[in-house]
Amino acid sequence: MTAQTIESAAAEARQRIRSNHWRGVTSGVAPGHVQANLAILPRDLAFDFLLFCQRNPRPCPLLEVIEAGSIEPVLTAPGADIRTDAAGYRIYRNGEFTAEVDTLENHWRDDLVSFLLGCSFSFETAMTDAGIPLRHQEQAKNVAMYITSIPTAPAGAFSGPMVVSMRPIKREQVVRAVQVTSRFPATHGAPVHIGSPRDIGIPNLDHPDFGDPIEIKPDEEPVFWACGVTPQAVALSCKPPLMFTHAPGKMFITDRRDADYAVL
Amino acid sequence: MTAQTIESAAAEARQRIRSNHWRGVTSGVAPGHVQANLAILPRDLAFDFLLFCQRNPRPCPLLEVIEAGSIEPVLTAPGADIRTDAAGYRIYRNGEFTAEVDTLENHWRDDLVSFLLGCSFSFETAMTDAGIPLRHQEQAKNVAMYITSIPTAPAGAFSGPMVVSMRPIKREQVVRAVQVTSRFPATHGAPVHIGSPRDIGIPNLDHPDFGDPIEIKPDEEPVFWACGVTPQAVALSCKPPLMFTHAPGKMFITDRRDADYAVL
Repeated sequence: MTAQTIESAAAEARQRIRSNHWRGVTSGVAPGHVQANLAILPRDLAFDFLLFCQRNPRPCPLLEVIEAGSIEPVLTAPGADIRTDAAGYRIYRNGEFTAEVDTLENHWRDDLVSFLLGCSFSFETAMTDAGIPLRHQEQAKNVAMYITSIPTAPAGAFSGPMVVSMRPIKREQVVRAVQVTSRFPATHGAPVHIGSPRDIGIPNLDHPDFGDPIEIKPDEEPVFWACGVTPQAVALSCKPPLMFTHAPGKMFITDRRDADYAVL
Repeated sequence: MTAQTIESAAAEARQRIRSNHWRGVTSGVAPGHVQANLAILPRDLAFDFLLFCQRNPRPCPLLEVIEAGSIEPVLTAPGADIRTDAAGYRIYRNGEFTAEVDTLENHWRDDLVSFLLGCSFSFETAMTDAGIPLRHQEQAKNVAMYITSIPTAPAGAFSGPMVVSMRPIKREQVVRAVQVTSRFPATHGAPVHIGSPRDIGIPNLDHPDFGDPIEIKPDEEPVFWACGVTPQAVALSCKPPLMFTHAPGKMFITDRRDADYAVL
């Protein structure tokens, strides 16, 4: 597959979404492309949130910021419209979920700043390519996510604990999983913790705070990565008057390839 | 040398500077530590400048941002004072250089935001450790720097060309130089260009825009890295009412170790 073909696949997927021909979850769509979590906030909060992301790059790997007054991600998806091209959006007012919508066109304001944040699909592809199976994918479940005792570095109005995702990895593949994911710092990167969940404030892996519980077999270790739920949870905890996000699993698909963000 | 000893060496160096016992250039001081370029700007410009750095991580690798009202780099040098602990500062008003001072205490305002940006000392240490000689160091010259035709990604008030530094590398060591510097994305990282200076808008290597001309031998290629002069030049070009920087060569020494920022 050439780069051109891949790029068209991303633009095509966005076009099908924008024209209301498709509204599913984006896992596996336009493979090879980086998909983004969205957090859209009023300009008053934008400096603090940008700084929060700068200080916490593992949970908040920024791919692009669209300034107030603009709706086009010129760096990662030129020609796209951030208000219409994700397959679903959530609206929060004063920190409370109020609606899930197909498009933000009727809700848009010119003072809104859009943050596109890397998601774990990139490094999950790299792991499966490297022969490391992912149980939540095999079982068609959502990854298990936990609120930890690991603090984030606060910035202005924003602070709170890091949320992590957990994947069970065979002990003999843990080193390889660290190596493979280390290459993708723009999409959460290396694990933040391996083994003993109590060390990071997780009392019981059977009861994730988000997502589905995932079985861990005797020859496996739980391995934890910083999760993109962190910035959303942190942003909502300060009860912003208005905030938009993508709907769960319905990411914004960029033109960028996973390899564009790989280091070494 | 233990981590504790190294940390003390950085704190000690800052203490000697703050107490006015030492005012030299910081190359080679507190070895193993990350040193930072400084750019200090009024809050009105802080979001745009932070966004400029986010969009241009190779020339503008942010180590830390100190919010308005604070003078302590709590993440990279807790206990330090950004107004007093660099060995020298420059003051610019409306984009014009007006004074070089030992301390910013008498010039400080509560609306100033401080940006600490990675400098090339970290990857230069890694290169010499890997047996790659650096001619400008051997000849005690300043590295040669050039304004290129490579555009930066603009952000609000900030835009302009990328400035690069050039180091002649033996052809047989060019690959190794790429590998070694790729490990340090927080301090400019991998080269942006190898060979043919005209490809990036440099007509003549004998006439650098900043620093000293450096001889290139027949078995060497000129290799170009994004340079920390870029954010200073870009910031000054929009003629901010007030801006402070470190004085040339007199960096701010952090507690962080080079290895803290290495990937893989």
